[in-house]
Parts: sequence; C-alpha cells; structure tokens
Amino acid sequence: MAEEAAVRAQAEAVRRLKQDKADPDEIAKEVAKLLEMKAQLGGDEGKHKFVLKTPKGTRDYSPKQMAIRERVFNAIITCFKRHGAEVIDTPVFELKETLTGKYGEDSKLIYDLKDQGGELLSLRYDLTVPFARYLAMNKITNIKRYHIAKVYRRDNPAMTRGRYREFYQCDFDIAGQFDPMIPDAECLKIVHEILSDLQLGDFLIKVNDRRILDGMFAVCGVPDSKFRTICSSVDKLDKMPWEEVRSEMVGEKGLSPEAADRIGEYVQLHGGLDLIERLLQDPKLSQNKLAKEGLGDMKLLFEYLTLFGIAGKISFDLSLARGLDYYTGVIFEAVLLQQENDHVEEPVSVGSVAGGGRYDGLVGMFDPKGRKVPCVGVSIGIERIFSILEQRVEASEEKIRTTDTQVLVASAQKKLLEERLKLISELWDAGIKAEMLYKKNPKLLNQLQYCEDTGIPLVAIVGEQELKDGVVKLRVVATREEVNVRRESLVEEIRMRTSQP
Amino acid sequence: MAEEAAVRAQAEAVRRLKQDKADPDEIAKEVAKLLEMKAQLGGDEGKHKFVLKTPKGTRDYSPKQMAIRERVFNAIITCFKRHGAEVIDTPVFELKETLTGKYGEDSKLIYDLKDQGGELLSLRYDLTVPFARYLAMNKITNIKRYHIAKVYRRDNPAMTRGRYREFYQCDFDIAGQFDPMIPDAECLKIVHEILSDLQLGDFLIKVNDRRILDGMFAVCGVPDSKFRTICSSVDKLDKMPWEEVRSEMVGEKGLSPEAADRIGEYVQLHGGLDLIERLLQDPKLSQNKLAKEGLGDMKLLFEYLTLFGIAGKISFDLSLARGLDYYTGVIFEAVLLQQENDHVEEPVSVGSVAGGGRYDGLVGMFDPKGRKVPCVGVSIGIERIFSILEQRVEASEEKIRTTDTQVLVASAQKKLLEERLKLISELWDAGIKAEMLYKKNPKLLNQLQYCEDTGIPLVAIVGEQELKDGVVKLRVVATREEVNVRRESLVEEIRMRTSQP
Repeated sequence: MAEEAAVRAQAEAVRRLKQDKADPDEIAKEVAKLLEMKAQLGGDEGKHKFVLKTPKGTRDYSPKQMAIRERVFNAIITCFKRHGAEVIDTPVFELKETLTGKYGEDSKLIYDLKDQGGELLSLRYDLTVPFARYLAMNKITNIKRYHIAKVYRRDNPAMTRGRYREFYQCDFDIAGQFDPMIPDAECLKIVHEILSDLQLGDFLIKVNDRRILDGMFAVCGVPDSKFRTICSSVDKLDKMPWEEVRSEMVGEKGLSPEAADRIGEYVQLHGGLDLIERLLQDPKLSQNKLAKEGLGDMKLLFEYLTLFGIAGKISFDLSLARGLDYYTGVIFEAVLLQQENDHVEEPVSVGSVAGGGRYDGLVGMFDPKGRKVPCVGVSIGIERIFSILEQRVEASEEKIRTTDTQVLVASAQKKLLEERLKLISELWDAGIKAEMLYKKNPKLLNQLQYCEDTGIPLVAIVGEQELKDGVVKLRVVATREEVNVRRESLVEEIRMRTSQP
Repeated sequence: MAEEAAVRAQAEAVRRLKQDKADPDEIAKEVAKLLEMKAQLGGDEGKHKFVLKTPKGTRDYSPKQMAIRERVFNAIITCFKRHGAEVIDTPVFELKETLTGKYGEDSKLIYDLKDQGGELLSLRYDLTVPFARYLAMNKITNIKRYHIAKVYRRDNPAMTRGRYREFYQCDFDIAGQFDPMIPDAECLKIVHEILSDLQLGDFLIKVNDRRILDGMFAVCGVPDSKFRTICSSVDKLDKMPWEEVRSEMVGEKGLSPEAADRIGEYVQLHGGLDLIERLLQDPKLSQNKLAKEGLGDMKLLFEYLTLFGIAGKISFDLSLARGLDYYTGVIFEAVLLQQENDHVEEPVSVGSVAGGGRYDGLVGMFDPKGRKVPCVGVSIGIERIFSILEQRVEASEEKIRTTDTQVLVASAQKKLLEERLKLISELWDAGIKAEMLYKKNPKLLNQLQYCEDTGIPLVAIVGEQELKDGVVKLRVVATREEVNVRRESLVEEIRMRTSQP
C-alpha cells in the first residue's frame, strides 16, 4: 500500500513537471523512475520492463541509409583528396581538460564520462579541438588534413531537421604559416565544389571576419569586455529577428541602446567587393585598425574567389558571427536557398550545411610555450545533407541497392547443396561477389525472388545435366534470358556482364 | 609550508601505491593529484600544468598509420561485400540497460557516461550486442550485415601488442533461421579469405562448440551451476599452462580434483574429422545429448569446409572456450603462427586475429516476447593486424604516400600567384588532384622539394613565356624530364601519365 502511494506521488510529480514544461531530460528521468516503480509493483516475477531504443538524439543507420551515407562521404572524400589532404583519426574521448575553455557558452553541452577511477574524460564536441591538440602534441606546424568522425553534443535534438546528439563532422583544415587568404580561399572553393557536386539545389556562402566584427563593435561603442557576448547575440540573427536580438543585447547583456542601434545598421549590410570598398571608406570603420585589416584581407579573398570563378555564390555578410570562441579571422557558413517553386519571392535560407573559419590561437592554447600555428578549416554539415537526400530518395521512389552482389548461385533440383558450395567457393576465390540461399534444398522460385528483391542481376544455376555437360546455366534476372556457359569461362562471363559501363 | 607538507605526504602515498603494485589507474590518479599540488605550489601565476596526451589506452592515427589502416579496411570490406553483406551503423553509446547482463565477468570493463540528467548511457563494448538490439528493435529476422566501428573496454592496455581501450572491430554476421552449419561455414571461409589476402603469414583457425564444451563438463562431473565459470577458466588455456588453470578450477572455483583431471584430458585434444569421429564413439561423450548434437554439427561443418578447400587450416580444438557469455553453438578463433625463422621447432601461436561464433539466444533477450533470431558471426581483430603491418612497413623502409596528389601547380618566376590560382582551379574542376604552395612567390626549388617529400609525380609549371605560348611546362619529378603541353591538353596529359597500370 505504501508503495502504491509512492507511485501515485511520483505520477503526480511527473504531471507537474510536464505542466511546467520542465527540461525534457528531467521529465524523462522522472518518467523512467515512475515506470520502474510501477514495474516493481506490478510484476510478480519482478521482471523489469526493458525499453528497446537508441539513446535520445541518436539513431541507427539501416543498410539503405548507409548506402546514401556512403554516396555522400565518397563525394566529400573525393573532394578533400583532390585538394591533396592527408587523413588522421583521434580517439572519441579526450581528457576533460583538453576540451575545457574552448567552447564558451556551449561547454554545458559536453558529454562527460563517469569517473570510474583514472583520468577524467569527455566525448569530443567537434574535430577542431582534437586537431589542435594533435598538432601541439606532435609539434606539427604544417599539415593539410581531413577527418571524418562522429562528435557529441547534449543539445536538444531536432532529428527531423537533421539535428542529433551524435552526428558526423567532415572537417578539412590547413595549418601553417602562409601568405594571407590563399588557404582561406581554398576552403571556400572546397565548400563550393562539394555543394555543387551533391546537387542539393541553390546555395550561398556567407563570409565575414572576426576582426571586422570586433572593429565594428569597437566603433559602435561596445566595451571590450562585452565583445564575445554581443557576438553570441549577433550569431542568433539567422534564427531571430533583429528586434529580439537587440532587446537581448540591451536587456540581458546591458548594452546601451545607442550602441545596439549602431550595430543594427551594420549587420543588415551584405554584398560583394563593392560593399568591401564602401566600408574601407567608412569614416568610422576605416579608423579602426582591426576592421581595416579584416576588410583588406576580405578584399584579397574576393580577388582569389574571382580567380576560382566562384565569387558569384559568396556574400560578404556583416550579420554572420558563428558561435565558437576560437575563431580569429575569416568565418563562413554555407546555406541552402529555398527552391523557387515554394512561391516565395526572394530565396530564403533553410539552414547551414557547412561552416568554418580561421583560428590562429587554438593550437597555442595547448603548446607549453604558447607557440602558435595558424589554422583555417571547413566543416561539412553532413547530417542535414543526409536528411535532404534521404527525403529526396523516398519521394522519388528510387530503388537503392544495399549490396553489390553480382550473382546468386542457385540450383534447380534437390540434393545439390554440395555442388552449390563448390561453385560459390570458386567464384569467391576469383573475386566474384556471390551469394546463395542458406537452405539445403531451396525452391528455384524462392531463389529467383531473392534476386528480384535485392537487385542481384545474374543467377548461376547448377543442375544434374549441367554438371554432366561441364556447364553452368547463367540467367539474366531482368530479361529472363538463359545461356549455358562452360564452367571455365563462367568467371569471365560474369565479369563481362556486370562490369560498369 | 602547510602546502609543502601536503605535497610530501602525497608523494609518499604515491610511492607506497607503486611499491604495493596497486591498480595502475589508482596510481595514475594519485600521481596526477601530486602533479597538480606541485604545480599550484610552484607557479606564481597559478598556471595549471596541462598534460598534453590522449586518454590512457587510446591513440591518434597519423596520416601514415591511416594509409595502412585504409589498406586493411579495404581488404576486409571487399571480402564482406564479396559475400553479399549489407552495412549498418549504430550509436557509439547505448542505454546502460542494453549492455547489462550480456558480458559475464567482463561487465566491469564497460565505460559508463556520467549521469548529467536524462538516460543512463554506456559506451558499446562490442558490435554484437548493438546488432542484436537493432534486430529486436526493428523486428528483423533475416539479414547478413557487416559493421566496422570502434568499441570500448576499460581493460589494461598493452598497446605494443595492439591491445587498446578504444579499438576497431570489423564484424560480419548472418542472422536467420537456416539449415545447419551453412552460414557457420561461410564465416570461417571469410576469416580464411581475409587472412590469406592480408598475407600475415601462416595461420590456424581453431573451432569448437559450446554444446560440446557443456557436454564435456557434464560428463566430467561439473555441476550445472559451475558451467560458465569453469568455461571461463578453460578460456585462459591460451595464456596459462594447464596446471595453473587446474588450480584455479579446484582452488578458486571449488571443482573436485577428479572432475578437473577429466577435463584436463579432453582439453588437450585437437584434430580434424578423425577426432570428431573418435569422440562420436567416446563412451561418455556420445551418451550426452548436447555433446552429440555438437559433434554431429562439427562433422557437417568439416564437410562444408572441405568443399570450400580450407579444412587444412582448421583445427577442432577442445581447449577453445571464448570468454563471452552469449555463445550457444560453434565458436572459433584464428591465430597467427610464429614464423619458422624464429628457431622454434613447432609453430607457436602469437595471438588471436579473428574470432566469433553462434549466439542463438541474444536477440531473444531484447525481444519483449523472447522471440529468437539465430545468429552466427565473425569479428576481425584489426588492431593486432595493424600492429603487425605497421611494424612490417617500418622494418622494410617502404615509403608510403599519404596523399593521392597527381600534380603540383608551380611557377618559376615571381608575381604568378594569380596564374597559379587560375590553373589549379581549372585542374580541380576537371577532377585532377592538384596542390600548390600557399606562398605568393615560392622558390622553384622549394616547390620541387615538396614533390620529392610527398611523392607527387608531376609538376605543372607556369611562366611568362609559357603563358604567352599557351602552354604549360609539365615536369616528371622522377626523371626530371620536361615537356611543354598545350593548355587545352593538360588535363588529358596528366590523366594519362598518372593512370594506374
């Protein structure tokens, strides 16, 4: 009886949390507690009700999803290799200390491991900080590398829009002391190549520079100590209207209304070389050393982008801020534009699919003597790209094969298992991708149906007569055509019939 | 002063722990505490001494290591695809509950995540339990899939021998209700193909069956309740002599000496079909239903392996037990044999490089109604294979390229950055893998040296005269041969000269 009262109390607690719109994690925890109490109460066997699911914000990839994922990875890796990148890998967790102080306000989203004795560990939050740690640890001052791996954020997942707690990042970075804007321009070229190659529709790459932002904050009258927090507010402009951002600056962050209004004028500016030239003449900005440096480099960047033939897709945009603390120079973000058929006059951005920037100070944070290694890099937002392509495949009803099998080894009569095993072994040893049904005496119809279902193009059929004649009957699934092929020519025949055009 | 005394006391505590050969993690923790205390004491700036390392038992992969790793993965994936496998992926962590009760005594090695509100999570310990969870959750009764991903064990690392806390597993499994031993035989064929393909030297695949082991325990007089723990002891026979295993059985686990001695006789047996036949006639074993079933299937397995032409590398070995709780039928393990030049008379096994077995009950543990899905699978021990190949590459001084770059775009004179950018952009857009130095005016010598260092085979040199003539000078790094190529033929020329034979 006391237990039942406890369950009722717990149920009431859950109800209240839901009513108060408490943190979903908090609610989930209390619900779990409730379920456990109920299970203990209800079951005579004391059998615990097991929830069959993946952790919140994560997902499995089915073979079909993997087929799409591999397509996208291939396009990205091909591009990274085209630009001469090496590849590295790092552990999924780092010493907790390694991640401390790198992510500003977002640090609360880091997954920590339980202290089970030994070192304190956290799951990596991105691939950039592990990369900087790797450079400092190995005293590397010069590298161009890519890294494709999963990262972890205890964020509120929005899985339908491709936002997960476990997700892939595909990073390409150039580290080293080089002449201005040459590696930076290459990063933008890479984004342009990948997004064009994947045919995701029209896109735009916004660029800005942390030095221009800081210079702008200075001339607008933002105190130095508020640069980072005001920058975080500006970063929200892609999700919130200016009025809300302004009231956050003035209300929460204590900025003067005049300073906020001056910022408000700048952040609506976007354009190309013309805007850069205009701002270089701006009486206030041109007096600020940082802003002038940033604008000079921005001009150089646009010259290089013009040589690359991609300046048309690039927009210098003063509202672009990027959340991460470690950026020091150029920053950029690629957004997909809504399709025309959505009946909207001007194309509207539907979300970021790539981003990056320059971070010249991060490696120095790990070096005992603070030696700096300038870096610039780009991260492809693969999960959102997956979501788009998955939806597209489903809408098109395109049939995606999930295996590469070239031939099914089948039999028309019973008692031929041994012959099937012998033949398939020959084919495997010759490098042919082959399957058979794991039945002693499968029906021919079932074997043919399996090919239809999985897209296997050929069937090699063994039968008493064929064995006597030293041939195998090769059937083309699509046309139902059948030919007898001499056993010693079978491998060659299968290769010929399944070679990609 | 009080701080200094505290540091001295801490140093003494560390010394004692080391003397007592305490748990290495415990020692590491106290050492870290000591270092921190020292740092706080020594530094006026209060600067925290940061340890630049990866977590214990983990490592980064450098580009050179990644090149070797990709070679091995390619060989393995090619084999899995040759056998018609699909591919899936699962999250790196699971609900803690999902892993509970699956690993027996090894459960203590599971990494848990910190409780930060929300669900309780653990890092996956292998890929088999997540696979079973995936099947049950999606009600899949029939699949052949591979999964290559990292798994986590808080084990004592022995990194020189390829034993890590974070390591890759490459798993291939066949799930479904099929005729006996056909999928099991295919798993062994796969191990044979991969180990042959990788040319790791001579190997042997040991096989046994949990039913034979259990039958053997029964006829030796082991009480039912002790089957699993005695099985764990037998599993240690590859690392310990029989005398030690025996004294563990009798001393720690309370088995009667007579029963232990009877086991001792069986576990020294190994052989092929002849041994199976002999045991089928064994007056005690042949009376045990489980053992008889297992021996019958073992005979069938050897018949199939003979048809596959691989029975010569397979040894039916009664000492093979495998640690994991979930196996129910055939189990196997592949070991590399020591090379002849090691001056040992009989080849000695130097460690397991693949293992697996049948686990018909695991999926049922996740299904609310306990519905079973029979499974058999193999896991390739890729880390040990990496270690061997890495050592071999280092010994051979083979030069491994870490990029695929076909051509370096260079200039012989100053002020040609823009021309280099234009040319490299053309090459990228045509799919050529090209690099340039990120300098405005690099010296030709440095550009050529870069090619020597990184193995880039061609240099495309732009110069004033070449620009006027509409040509590019193409230099072959190895021969120093130079030819002028018309700009419109450059892509074709590079492709031709760098195509794989």
